[in-house]
Amino acid sequence: MTTSWQDRARQKREAILAAIPPEWVIKDRPSIEEQRDVTGEYIRGFLSEREVEITETDAEKIVDKTTTGAWKAEEITRAFCHRAALAHQLLHCLHEIFFDAAIESARSLDAYFAEHGKPVGPLHGLPVSLKDQFHVKDVETTMGYVGWIGTFEGKVGTGKEKVFESEMVRELRNLGAVLYCKTSVPHTLMAGETTNNIIGYTLNPKNRNLTAGGSSGGEGALIGIKGSPIGFGTDIGGSIRIPAAFNGLYGIRPTSGRFPYQGMANSMDGQNTILSVVGPLATTAGSLRLMTKAILSQQPWLHDPMVHEMPWRDSHEQGISTILNSTGSSEGGKLCFGVMPTDGIVNPSPPIRRAIDIVVKALRSHGHEVVDWNPPSHRAILDEAFKTWDFDAGSDLKSSFALSGGADASTSRQLRCAAKALLRQRDIGGEPLQSSLRGPRQDQKSILPVTEVDKDIDVVDVEYTPLDERDKICHESYDPSIYDGAHVGVQLVGRRLQEEKMLAIAEYVGKIVGK
Amino acid sequence: MTTSWQDRARQKREAILAAIPPEWVIKDRPSIEEQRDVTGEYIRGFLSEREVEITETDAEKIVDKTTTGAWKAEEITRAFCHRAALAHQLLHCLHEIFFDAAIESARSLDAYFAEHGKPVGPLHGLPVSLKDQFHVKDVETTMGYVGWIGTFEGKVGTGKEKVFESEMVRELRNLGAVLYCKTSVPHTLMAGETTNNIIGYTLNPKNRNLTAGGSSGGEGALIGIKGSPIGFGTDIGGSIRIPAAFNGLYGIRPTSGRFPYQGMANSMDGQNTILSVVGPLATTAGSLRLMTKAILSQQPWLHDPMVHEMPWRDSHEQGISTILNSTGSSEGGKLCFGVMPTDGIVNPSPPIRRAIDIVVKALRSHGHEVVDWNPPSHRAILDEAFKTWDFDAGSDLKSSFALSGGADASTSRQLRCAAKALLRQRDIGGEPLQSSLRGPRQDQKSILPVTEVDKDIDVVDVEYTPLDERDKICHESYDPSIYDGAHVGVQLVGRRLQEEKMLAIAEYVGKIVGK
Repeated sequence: MTTSWQDRARQKREAILAAIPPEWVIKDRPSIEEQRDVTGEYIRGFLSEREVEITETDAEKIVDKTTTGAWKAEEITRAFCHRAALAHQLLHCLHEIFFDAAIESARSLDAYFAEHGKPVGPLHGLPVSLKDQFHVKDVETTMGYVGWIGTFEGKVGTGKEKVFESEMVRELRNLGAVLYCKTSVPHTLMAGETTNNIIGYTLNPKNRNLTAGGSSGGEGALIGIKGSPIGFGTDIGGSIRIPAAFNGLYGIRPTSGRFPYQGMANSMDGQNTILSVVGPLATTAGSLRLMTKAILSQQPWLHDPMVHEMPWRDSHEQGISTILNSTGSSEGGKLCFGVMPTDGIVNPSPPIRRAIDIVVKALRSHGHEVVDWNPPSHRAILDEAFKTWDFDAGSDLKSSFALSGGADASTSRQLRCAAKALLRQRDIGGEPLQSSLRGPRQDQKSILPVTEVDKDIDVVDVEYTPLDERDKICHESYDPSIYDGAHVGVQLVGRRLQEEKMLAIAEYVGKIVGK
Repeated sequence: MTTSWQDRARQKREAILAAIPPEWVIKDRPSIEEQRDVTGEYIRGFLSEREVEITETDAEKIVDKTTTGAWKAEEITRAFCHRAALAHQLLHCLHEIFFDAAIESARSLDAYFAEHGKPVGPLHGLPVSLKDQFHVKDVETTMGYVGWIGTFEGKVGTGKEKVFESEMVRELRNLGAVLYCKTSVPHTLMAGETTNNIIGYTLNPKNRNLTAGGSSGGEGALIGIKGSPIGFGTDIGGSIRIPAAFNGLYGIRPTSGRFPYQGMANSMDGQNTILSVVGPLATTAGSLRLMTKAILSQQPWLHDPMVHEMPWRDSHEQGISTILNSTGSSEGGKLCFGVMPTDGIVNPSPPIRRAIDIVVKALRSHGHEVVDWNPPSHRAILDEAFKTWDFDAGSDLKSSFALSGGADASTSRQLRCAAKALLRQRDIGGEPLQSSLRGPRQDQKSILPVTEVDKDIDVVDVEYTPLDERDKICHESYDPSIYDGAHVGVQLVGRRLQEEKMLAIAEYVGKIVGK
């Protein structure tokens, strides 16, 4: 008798939980009402002092320790596996757990260091989490589809099942990274929140009333609770930026063609009008720079023909750093930022307005120029974007759902979710003064955390006049008591292929707003 | 009463001829039978010794003269205008003639040099011809459509008619180039030969029995007869490479995103699976390098968001030059070339087989490695390519034809022409030894001339067994007596974004085969 899709989903869900060692199982899991915020002191209660020390160290400082031999890869890996296991039980953020393989690879790295007195690479012993689009040897990729369980991207007998690895995985291994888990995604990937029929709904660790965002929602939740120091998501319409913003993280949506997407699972393969890109999320901007430099050092353009031959450019970063370091001095180095207060579709809610104000004030007080930037409404371009994502009339998504023989979450509902998520985003545009021209494709975007919602400050604007019915719904959905404590981030937008500059600017802005 | 499309086409055709000064009109134009080859001595008969000297100097040497003040822009411009005017009368290769504006701009350049003692830019006084997709102030763009006469890309009242300029035009003017004519294209652009209802059929100057190729056929014919030292075409499926090969020229199909396509007319705008690119054709490889460096010096990425920020990289060129200069020495610098003897659809004809042999022997005798490269038949990828070009079921092309109210050359015939042209191409793959990996998108291709058809050597292979009916037709269409004297070129294919290396290799291979 055929197993129902519900049973197959349940078996997979239970298999994920069964991969958690019994000593890490939380016996009495608190309800959301009992424990809204599971970060900080709450999760520390399950960990040793040493585990807290390790897992609350950012990626940059971890590799400072591992590449000098001060810390061992195995100890670091075990600590992050433990915290990730706790995270999944509280938030439903993992699709795949392979702690044993991770510990084995950490031991190899330690052995290498012991033998050679030097690290394997710049990411030696660094645990890196991966969105469930990455193919990893001995591990499944479901992308949240019940019908993909036991297959390779929904296909059987390809010979690639649990053998094939994505190009990024090969490079991360070369660099000395430790891979230990894959994180949750919304089936279809086309949503700003993360839910599927296998693991359910991924919660926001800072406020479990809220979504962790999507589509890289598992990454957002896991790194947000510090169950991973750095991880990779993908982004086509905000899928790195939304979870980064919702979880108080730094995230970068790199330009198409900077990082290799070769050999990853994806939705709607062949849609190439707006390309999905792969990029990191982490707790600090420095961690993003570490990862970006490391990946580029692998010359990904020799292995993925879509990647441009463009190594990390120190001179670009230094050009910006020189300006930022001279700010306020008599030489008067300064940048010019354009602020986009609204996209013309939905106006920002009170905490987001406040976050933008914080950034603007900090920039001005440090001597930078800030100008208003009021482009036409994003409505027309958003409508065009949806046409490109719907170019196949949903056939790719529907066929993936059909594989399960019934687990058909409505595709159109997913696409509506994506729309809602996009509408939740607020942008702040930042661009160096020296580049006065602006192209229509500003492909390089990063997110930095600014503040948290404070129900006593961020009260409902009772005099607000909504733009239209949609804006009214968004306006009315803001409830300070529910959102209290949630992260608020802003987006920095720069010219294409300016990752070096934009990471330097993100780090600087984060510093001056106190993050 | 409405003018018929035939009359409008005739009026335009006559207006082009009327722009030729009376003293440059050829009174008794010879028939093809009377004068098959109109290059060399034949065309020199219409020119002064000084005009011959100027027009038979390549772009690199012309700017050596102009940037030092040895030659004046006006004299150079007049000489090329004269030779281009002769070319059009013999070959039907021009869509727009604006010699007066060219001479005026040349005078300004001379005045600038006289005043400042230095050139305007690295292309000071260099005449550059442009395929009729470039928009130039005061000049029309018809792209061969009768319905586009008097419009901006088929639209009226845009305010852009004869005012708007393409980004490349702006950059060429900045660099000091002189623009003087626009060259013929097949309507639709999707053909490997050049014909339209306005100027008729563009002939090959070396052998007027034959096509000049397409879609940049006007460029091929004009530069082939030395009516231009260098010009720009565009290429999506061979449109630079085919006319370069058919006219004994060097041509480069740059990687997408290296040169700016911003603000140019095109067919099927929005088709972005296989992008058309813009690139130069010229009589020498050095001229292509001059132009590539010059355009990149304009930082086109600041003006066209599709262009990658990638300046000319001297180190890339020098890396290859160092290897090539040490070839045969005891250090044994060498490259490895893969030769693709057939694409599996149509096998090469005798002169093309001979051209490949010439290149292979020259490479081997200079100490390089040459290996056979036998990829699967190109059939599958060609079928996919045609799907992307036919994605709108011809609606863009049909609507452009419909504008004329009747001048409807069959679109499907055009697409068949394109297929035929593609089949005529033969490839030789060349790739530096140090890059041993090969991606599916080898976007960087250049053409170099190798030899000419010799009816006494390149006889019909009577023992040949065709692959199929199509191959049989191509095989039988080769008639040594008709093709005698025609140019034969080969294609060098390199990795994406390796323009610096591939131009150095093309120059080197051209040198060792004696071109």
